[in-house]
Amino acid sequence: MAMTRSLEVKGKPVGGGKEPLICAPLVGRDEAAVVGELDAIVAKQPDLLEWRVDFFAGIPETGRVVDMAQEIRKSAAGIPIIFTRRSIREGGETIGISEEQVLALYLAVARSGAVDFIDYELSSEPKHFQQAVELARETGTKLIASFHNFQKTPPADEIVAKFVAMEKAGADIAKVAVMPQGLEDVLTVLQATLEGQKKISLPIISMSMGAYGSLSRLFGWVFGSSVSFAVGQKASAPGQVPIEDMKKVLEVLQRSLKGG
Amino acid sequence: MAMTRSLEVKGKPVGGGKEPLICAPLVGRDEAAVVGELDAIVAKQPDLLEWRVDFFAGIPETGRVVDMAQEIRKSAAGIPIIFTRRSIREGGETIGISEEQVLALYLAVARSGAVDFIDYELSSEPKHFQQAVELARETGTKLIASFHNFQKTPPADEIVAKFVAMEKAGADIAKVAVMPQGLEDVLTVLQATLEGQKKISLPIISMSMGAYGSLSRLFGWVFGSSVSFAVGQKASAPGQVPIEDMKKVLEVLQRSLKGG
Repeated sequence: MAMTRSLEVKGKPVGGGKEPLICAPLVGRDEAAVVGELDAIVAKQPDLLEWRVDFFAGIPETGRVVDMAQEIRKSAAGIPIIFTRRSIREGGETIGISEEQVLALYLAVARSGAVDFIDYELSSEPKHFQQAVELARETGTKLIASFHNFQKTPPADEIVAKFVAMEKAGADIAKVAVMPQGLEDVLTVLQATLEGQKKISLPIISMSMGAYGSLSRLFGWVFGSSVSFAVGQKASAPGQVPIEDMKKVLEVLQRSLKGG
Repeated sequence: MAMTRSLEVKGKPVGGGKEPLICAPLVGRDEAAVVGELDAIVAKQPDLLEWRVDFFAGIPETGRVVDMAQEIRKSAAGIPIIFTRRSIREGGETIGISEEQVLALYLAVARSGAVDFIDYELSSEPKHFQQAVELARETGTKLIASFHNFQKTPPADEIVAKFVAMEKAGADIAKVAVMPQGLEDVLTVLQATLEGQKKISLPIISMSMGAYGSLSRLFGWVFGSSVSFAVGQKASAPGQVPIEDMKKVLEVLQRSLKGG
């Protein structure tokens, strides 16, 4: 049953249209660490890989980053790749380069053909966000606009407004990840995802983080979240569930949702 | 982590306080069918059994019902038992006896010591509900007040009002089972369960039914539902998940909720 919208690479749905897509993060500090993660993760057959380049110590050297991206592409056995620099502002690591340099890096990596998606934050300066939109179009990559709040969960209507703003700003996919302060907040994200699907036509990725939020990682797809981030080898955000556990639960859920 | 309130039998928490309690229904038409179910179900180690006596063809004969209840008690290997006549009005089977006879049957079965809980509907006439309260007190059984809607899901505040009315009417446990018309309604039940826990001090049992509702059978305990009804051999309501599947998901959820 189609609860979510599919992500596409070269006109074909990622994962053959399965729901949800499971995405495993790569968070290695250097080449050896990333290669080690890749070996462990690819064997678990996620549907997507996200390379969090803000964890990578080589980030100031464009050539090193492009080489690494191509190395990931080679080892990924056809699994589509998201290229992401998460800013400190939204929970990422400290990097030593300017926003202009980040965008130049995105352009170089996207042009190399080593990645399929780029993730860029809606909270960026509008001129920078516009550059991300343009470089995605130019290179044929898809732009995931993202919003994170590691402290709290905004009300449902504010989350929906983020989705709408992402579509308006030219994104191909809209992503929101927020921290619950209680169980109500987990329901808020699910509600906002349902409503978001009615308000915009992009695929949505949503999640509540932390221990309670792990619920949304397991069953948020039923409410319309196309991707769930799961632990391949090492988590990139609180509450991520191991891929093996995710698959166990999904198998039961998919069966249950057909019955009744 | 205590998300739910425990059900108690003789001052001890059922299932040693595990969350949620898994309850398997017995829906056999006659003695042989019920005994067959029991054999299959007890092996799967649910925490509770619910004997749906409205399915039992022997319901007009008090002696036959009491004998069957004692047979169930003997075969149940210590698993506590809920005795339930579900009315046609709330999704049960046709039975050939009056409400006065139903209450006399409840009294006879409760007095026999063969059951630990009785389920009686809040929508019953007040004088009948009051009789159920009194017979529960007299016999030392616990009264589950229940409300079912197989067509739709009332708004959250109406569900909370049911919980409050159940406590006020003298119930020991408050149960609501309603049918979702969309995914929003599944969230409504979870929201109402969270709120209900703040408004009353009784243990709550809640569920959304049907295919979508199966989500609440798997995750509703996190929001405060003490019991999930699961299929031992045969379902008694739409959306019930097999015990084995329930256990697989619970194991992952319990681990996820500790992390993060």
